[in-house]
Amino acid sequence: MGSCCERMGPQKNTYVRVSLPAVCFVWQIAMIILFGVFIRYDEESSATWPEYRDKKNLTDIENDFYFRYPSFQDVHVMIFVGFGFLMTFLKRYCYGGAGFTFLIASFGLQWALLMQGWFHSLDLTTGKISIGVESLINADFCCAGSLIAFGALLGKVSPVQLMVVTLFGVTLFAVEEYIILDLLHCRDAGGSMVIHCFGGYYGLAISWVLYRPNLHQSKRLHGSSYHSDLFAMIGTLFLWMFWPSFNSAITDHGDGQHRAAINTYIALASSVLTSFAISSMAQKKGKLDMVHVQNATLAGAVAMGTAAEFMITPYGSLIVGFCMGIISVFGYLFITPFFEKYLKLQDTCGIHNLHALPGMLGGFIGAIVAAAATEEVYSEQGLINVFDKTGVYADRDQGTQGGFQAAGTCVSIAFGLVGGALVGLILKFPIWGDPADDNCFDDEAYWELPEEDEETIPPVLEYNNHMIQKGQDITESSFSVEQS
Amino acid sequence: MGSCCERMGPQKNTYVRVSLPAVCFVWQIAMIILFGVFIRYDEESSATWPEYRDKKNLTDIENDFYFRYPSFQDVHVMIFVGFGFLMTFLKRYCYGGAGFTFLIASFGLQWALLMQGWFHSLDLTTGKISIGVESLINADFCCAGSLIAFGALLGKVSPVQLMVVTLFGVTLFAVEEYIILDLLHCRDAGGSMVIHCFGGYYGLAISWVLYRPNLHQSKRLHGSSYHSDLFAMIGTLFLWMFWPSFNSAITDHGDGQHRAAINTYIALASSVLTSFAISSMAQKKGKLDMVHVQNATLAGAVAMGTAAEFMITPYGSLIVGFCMGIISVFGYLFITPFFEKYLKLQDTCGIHNLHALPGMLGGFIGAIVAAAATEEVYSEQGLINVFDKTGVYADRDQGTQGGFQAAGTCVSIAFGLVGGALVGLILKFPIWGDPADDNCFDDEAYWELPEEDEETIPPVLEYNNHMIQKGQDITESSFSVEQS
Amino acid sequence: MGSCCERMGPQKNTYVRVSLPAVCFVWQIAMIILFGVFIRYDEESSATWPEYRDKKNLTDIENDFYFRYPSFQDVHVMIFVGFGFLMTFLKRYCYGGAGFTFLIASFGLQWALLMQGWFHSLDLTTGKISIGVESLINADFCCAGSLIAFGALLGKVSPVQLMVVTLFGVTLFAVEEYIILDLLHCRDAGGSMVIHCFGGYYGLAISWVLYRPNLHQSKRLHGSSYHSDLFAMIGTLFLWMFWPSFNSAITDHGDGQHRAAINTYIALASSVLTSFAISSMAQKKGKLDMVHVQNATLAGAVAMGTAAEFMITPYGSLIVGFCMGIISVFGYLFITPFFEKYLKLQDTCGIHNLHALPGMLGGFIGAIVAAAATEEVYSEQGLINVFDKTGVYADRDQGTQGGFQAAGTCVSIAFGLVGGALVGLILKFPIWGDPADDNCFDDEAYWELPEEDEETIPPVLEYNNHMIQKGQDITESSFSVEQS
Repeated sequence: MGSCCERMGPQKNTYVRVSLPAVCFVWQIAMIILFGVFIRYDEESSATWPEYRDKKNLTDIENDFYFRYPSFQDVHVMIFVGFGFLMTFLKRYCYGGAGFTFLIASFGLQWALLMQGWFHSLDLTTGKISIGVESLINADFCCAGSLIAFGALLGKVSPVQLMVVTLFGVTLFAVEEYIILDLLHCRDAGGSMVIHCFGGYYGLAISWVLYRPNLHQSKRLHGSSYHSDLFAMIGTLFLWMFWPSFNSAITDHGDGQHRAAINTYIALASSVLTSFAISSMAQKKGKLDMVHVQNATLAGAVAMGTAAEFMITPYGSLIVGFCMGIISVFGYLFITPFFEKYLKLQDTCGIHNLHALPGMLGGFIGAIVAAAATEEVYSEQGLINVFDKTGVYADRDQGTQGGFQAAGTCVSIAFGLVGGALVGLILKFPIWGDPADDNCFDDEAYWELPEEDEETIPPVLEYNNHMIQKGQDITESSFSVEQS
Repeated sequence: MGSCCERMGPQKNTYVRVSLPAVCFVWQIAMIILFGVFIRYDEESSATWPEYRDKKNLTDIENDFYFRYPSFQDVHVMIFVGFGFLMTFLKRYCYGGAGFTFLIASFGLQWALLMQGWFHSLDLTTGKISIGVESLINADFCCAGSLIAFGALLGKVSPVQLMVVTLFGVTLFAVEEYIILDLLHCRDAGGSMVIHCFGGYYGLAISWVLYRPNLHQSKRLHGSSYHSDLFAMIGTLFLWMFWPSFNSAITDHGDGQHRAAINTYIALASSVLTSFAISSMAQKKGKLDMVHVQNATLAGAVAMGTAAEFMITPYGSLIVGFCMGIISVFGYLFITPFFEKYLKLQDTCGIHNLHALPGMLGGFIGAIVAAAATEEVYSEQGLINVFDKTGVYADRDQGTQGGFQAAGTCVSIAFGLVGGALVGLILKFPIWGDPADDNCFDDEAYWELPEEDEETIPPVLEYNNHMIQKGQDITESSFSVEQS
Repeated sequence: MGSCCERMGPQKNTYVRVSLPAVCFVWQIAMIILFGVFIRYDEESSATWPEYRDKKNLTDIENDFYFRYPSFQDVHVMIFVGFGFLMTFLKRYCYGGAGFTFLIASFGLQWALLMQGWFHSLDLTTGKISIGVESLINADFCCAGSLIAFGALLGKVSPVQLMVVTLFGVTLFAVEEYIILDLLHCRDAGGSMVIHCFGGYYGLAISWVLYRPNLHQSKRLHGSSYHSDLFAMIGTLFLWMFWPSFNSAITDHGDGQHRAAINTYIALASSVLTSFAISSMAQKKGKLDMVHVQNATLAGAVAMGTAAEFMITPYGSLIVGFCMGIISVFGYLFITPFFEKYLKLQDTCGIHNLHALPGMLGGFIGAIVAAAATEEVYSEQGLINVFDKTGVYADRDQGTQGGFQAAGTCVSIAFGLVGGALVGLILKFPIWGDPADDNCFDDEAYWELPEEDEETIPPVLEYNNHMIQKGQDITESSFSVEQS
């Protein structure tokens, strides 16, 4: 594979032997120092738990670990196997898709523990951040934003650039999350706004700045193979199955987690049917397209990220999933090509259709459902719990809450677009080892590939055996071809 | 791949561009309307939970969500990744195997929430069905019946036919489940009877009606490839690992879930050893067959579906697994070929050996274990809990219970066979877009495949490079062959 | 593929048609008898639980099942999918890697329930072993030791030999575990010592005894392919994601499980960055090596196996992960080749770098952290809980505890090396059906492979189509080559 790169003339330098280790080491050492200064176990994960438990009159099973750990593990699978394998759909960028997801999420979650800790759980008396299982979930959520952005950049950037995308992505995430959840007091359990909408527009803005006019030079690799699409289905299915856990992972104990899981489960089922339907309608022979099956089927859950914990009702969830499946496939059919042609925006995985747009719509759906909430449906205590109507927010009426939810969505879009544009400019410096236009979507650039591919051996043997059966020696056959 | 189809003369029309979207839209819209009329959150997933909790003197951790959600997620993985990937073993039907599983399970679970709701949890005063996490598990279970049937039909039907199979499959399931669990008051936590036995015979009966005398015309695709078998192992392993959750998902809180998980874990381990043993014995060089490893290893859990919650004892579980591994491999070796040759019944995945037969035997094993239950072993309260001896059933003796369990198994077989035959007749109408005999087991019929397969590129390069090394230009080489 | 074996002259006999079924049947029947004599449900999984619960004033949710079952399922996935798929990296030993893992773990867990039961939970009055969910976790742990050993032997042994490795591996494991945990009263929740260090040296000693001087004869198969490396990534990621559950599965309820999960999560993230960094530095063009990504990224969790439940602090966990990523990649770069060249030790998967060495270091890290534990950090009750300072151990000071922990590590190494050497000698008998040197790393030896590989079909068609486009019939083309 390497030879084709050399053949095609001058190219950028994908040499990351200095920059990648340097970035990894410097940032990992920084993490160690900052963790040493700031991060400690919280009351529920410290060896002092028995005293705390007895003081609060709890039992061991009421440790937050048992409320949230199963959901945490599902979210963890979504981040590493879900996102990772969803990005293996390209025929020769499977290592990059799964491997760089692994790298940047591992860095991102450390940085997220710090950034989110500073904003949300810094104890001002001791100067320490206390972490528990909920912090781990939030850190994984925070990585998701950067992984979504990776989807737009897939195959076109170096791992060093991805580390930069993640550093700034996590930082911006923590700030916009603070503004949306704390200052505006929005509810966004599954992150339609703070994760998907932000992450989507962040990635799109970066990709827009990094536009490659000659990307068609690597067109031969810009597609899937039969098996790479099947690997991607592993990612899709783990995302799809565990999304109820994603949307319910940090909602209220009891009914909050229960309801968010049910709503997401129902919305996802509905998305699948409309995605398949539109996918089949769009092709002239009625054949299904794996791109739609892999992505649009998930759009319902993205759009339920805000509203899942509300009393949106089961049929409300069905309607959301129904519309999102349709919108998302339309996005793949029309919006992505439009973006590429007219906006000069190359979106490898189509994150606009799976994250940015459904996330934005999910924010507004959340606003509407919040505005429509009544004490009759939620009960008095229920309304207080679900919308966290405590302290200065006790008297905020539901219409106002809806307005703030909508404002929060706009904040996330703004952060994504502006932040992404700035990060894109940083990534334009010619020091990051990104591939040339004719070398994109190719694992060859950053990975040692197996010298002789399995796929190449059997056919040759087959070919030769075929010859042998017809009474000829391998060498002779080759030779005769030469001489003929 | 497409060219071969055209070469082989006249064929059925696999055009589903109208019918598939039509079915998806009509049924999805029907679901929205019916959900709107009937489905509501239950007490534990509604925002009114705090009031209910305090009234019942519970704590948040006693919400049913925390008892069942981890098991639900495991079951969910079994349905979508387990069943889905188990059906990717064919070399060119991987998209169909995983993709259609995704489609029909997503529809099936919605319809199941309604059907099971009407039969089991319709509140006659309000006319509403209340759903919670246990409803989601039951809906997934209900889909399993139709997915089992899909196994017998794999590669020979259109997605529209599969939607019909699922519509009727879920309907029949809900009725036979109502008869078996409610009218006969049988116990069947893991569904040996209601899921596996019913689903297996349902699929076999459909396949029998849809017999294709010329199926040998697609023999070239009726086998596995090295990698497709490995993808199928992903399905097998997730089914195998999570089956303890399947059998324990809806059993009693406390010991019921605990015991069902242990029994299933043990039975599965035992199945693996005997499956490997018989598989090796059956081949003249002692080599193992992936078909047996992928399927027969699971038979022990199918047969424990009824008895897992009983006090069958750990060694009893081992014995069940031991026998099922043997019986299932024998089924693949002798019964499936016999069925195909003499009964004109084509069973693509061998569901008879993995579901129908072990499910039926599991029903009878459950009957025997139930009949043998004594107060000495179970304790008085234990016996009441395990067999739900309340109300009019308080005085039913264990022998009678065993008799009813056996009767329940017969009901499930009858529903499967009769229902399947009728659905098979419906599917014979020439309107469903099913593939021609020479076009079976081929994703080409319903999926847009990658234009140029990855597997095809490297070998050609390899071949050409080989030539080049011998001092010849590619074009010349090709040319010379032409001219020779 | 088979033809190449015949070509290469005399070979060992891989005929296991008698021995493999014999071993499976004899051992499975022995299991049934021993389970019948010894194994019973414990108080929490028996139908008598309601009485026990009420007597102890518990609620259903306090059944141990709800504390440990989610972790158990994660561990179960690690054993079967994690270890199984990690071993599919060889291009033509994927069936063996995943399939034999399935076989030996299924046998091993049964034997482990008995062996660990006899040593840890045999009731001397009744002569019975009581099992519950914690027993299942421990049985899975016990299998891990033998699966690690399998990693060193991958591709070079027969399934019958692997059954022997597992029989003795589980036996030795139970004995050394009894010595380390009970007699020395060490703490080792995630098994740095008892699982990884023992399993690693056990496998290395066996592999050393079974040294094959002519293994280079199967060099053509001793590598990965593009897709086999991607299958292995499935294994890596499931191990990586679920390792927090592995290290926390059997720790104390409440803070013990909570803290062990957090520490492992953090250590793993840190390992990833340093593994990538060193992998890139080591290659002259800075390219990443999949071997390092698949293995070294996990080393941090292995080394946290003992210390994860201690108050090692979050930054302590980061430091452990940081160092282990570096050490493990160095192991792959320098130690494994050194072992092969100078010690005549062939370690297929490099288990020395992933398990033996990090496990040993983890044992010593645990010793240091234990020795440094103070009442100030742990609180009085915390120190008693974490180090189980009850009975005769109530007054053991922390320095002494550290000394015993270090001694425990040495015991595990000794058991591994001596036990492995003895088992290696047993495996040298020429009765086990192991493959010849030129037949290693080849599924052909023990598996029926698909007759005509998918990979072989498209290229031939491609080749022929190519010809056809140039105006020639397939048969003519072949013929002309023959005649030329």
